[in-house]
Amino acid sequence: MRVSFLGTGAAGGVPLYGCHCRACERAHADRAAVRQPCCALIETGLTRVLLDAGLMDLHRRFPHGSLDAILLTHFHPDHVQGLFHLRWGVGEKLAVHGPKDSEGCADLYKHPGLLDFQSARKFAPFTVGELKITPLPLIHSKPTLGYAVEGPGGERFAYLTDTRGLPPRSLAWLQNWGRFELALDCSFPPRPEPANHNDWDSALACVDELQPARTWLTHVGHKLDDWLITQSPRMPESLLIAADGQVFDVVPTAE
Amino acid sequence: MRVSFLGTGAAGGVPLYGCHCRACERAHADRAAVRQPCCALIETGLTRVLLDAGLMDLHRRFPHGSLDAILLTHFHPDHVQGLFHLRWGVGEKLAVHGPKDSEGCADLYKHPGLLDFQSARKFAPFTVGELKITPLPLIHSKPTLGYAVEGPGGERFAYLTDTRGLPPRSLAWLQNWGRFELALDCSFPPRPEPANHNDWDSALACVDELQPARTWLTHVGHKLDDWLITQSPRMPESLLIAADGQVFDVVPTAE
Repeated sequence: MRVSFLGTGAAGGVPLYGCHCRACERAHADRAAVRQPCCALIETGLTRVLLDAGLMDLHRRFPHGSLDAILLTHFHPDHVQGLFHLRWGVGEKLAVHGPKDSEGCADLYKHPGLLDFQSARKFAPFTVGELKITPLPLIHSKPTLGYAVEGPGGERFAYLTDTRGLPPRSLAWLQNWGRFELALDCSFPPRPEPANHNDWDSALACVDELQPARTWLTHVGHKLDDWLITQSPRMPESLLIAADGQVFDVVPTAE
Repeated sequence: MRVSFLGTGAAGGVPLYGCHCRACERAHADRAAVRQPCCALIETGLTRVLLDAGLMDLHRRFPHGSLDAILLTHFHPDHVQGLFHLRWGVGEKLAVHGPKDSEGCADLYKHPGLLDFQSARKFAPFTVGELKITPLPLIHSKPTLGYAVEGPGGERFAYLTDTRGLPPRSLAWLQNWGRFELALDCSFPPRPEPANHNDWDSALACVDELQPARTWLTHVGHKLDDWLITQSPRMPESLLIAADGQVFDVVPTAE
């Protein structure tokens, strides 16, 4: 099971429009430091699933028929805005699983076009091709689901963004899941009162409680990047900062 | 006064996602035939105004400070979706003039960020730099304004999309405006009951009533492009089909 981080940025991305902090200047100079809207692709030999749809060029990246489903964590624009264009297409419907959210985003429900929106139920697993997917509720300013994804060889990957901490039931579910790799919301450097998103400290507290095999911090804002440049915090080998375009294989592991 | 058509497509653009009609195949093969979300730039020596904000890369095209204002015709996603990303920027506010629409689009009003939304009033002229701008109501499925733009040398350009026909007062206003050039919604080939957008016949009826110096048909859908390939309709020299990237100067003309 292969995971590709297509975008790893917080809302507004890096460089942030009009900003001249060190992180934003670095991203202007070096394309490798750019962070687009938070989005990942999961692939096995037979299945291809997109996690979130905030990238603005989905219609060019994924020709019709090249995706088996899209999983939406929530309906904030930076996670769904790529769908506005995609929906007007023709041909077979594309399944879009997401949290039950009566608002959705703008007129996506009114004019779904090609998109077949389906409400995912908390803790109720479903399958897409070779993948077994369990939605886990998160803590955010809109109904939000993380996804625990299990591949055909027992590979396990959890994608938990956007969130500030974890609800006790989601935490307990993951603690009983066995060995897995994790992508986790870490939007900000340490700050007094984190809300809606993890800061560095609350993200590391989650990691400490979950003890994943490896953790990739994602949904990174420019202030966190700037802080990382200045502070260069010491990090265990199993903790990584995700980058746009990064690809890794989730290896099946014996429990 | 220079006008650049940055995008000339109907919602979904050309090529339409998943479509294999002649127009869409042509656009896949030839970048010059691609139609992005409908959007234009008006520039004088001192002023730079964007008409609609549906392009997905506004933040890259227009660095902070490079636009004096954005004029929105209406709040459908294909005309505003580029703002979702732009708004999170830092620095001086960017004026965004648009119709009074209590809904707006998604959470743009709730989180305007950098954007300074201002309601334009029908027939009430305002200025942005060297440009005198008069909002004209149009006929669409959401509150929608066209804009009559007058440059410092008396150059006149009207941008009328999205619309199906014209309200009598807007028609009368333009008929009394003197000589002007026009960009006009023409989304579809002739069809029995056009709604929300002009088809070929209703667009030509508008042109006949307005008698502009030149008309550029825009907001073109793939079916119209396909029809144009097949039918090659005879057109007077003053009637043109707009294309993405096309640039022209509006010349001051004696009345």
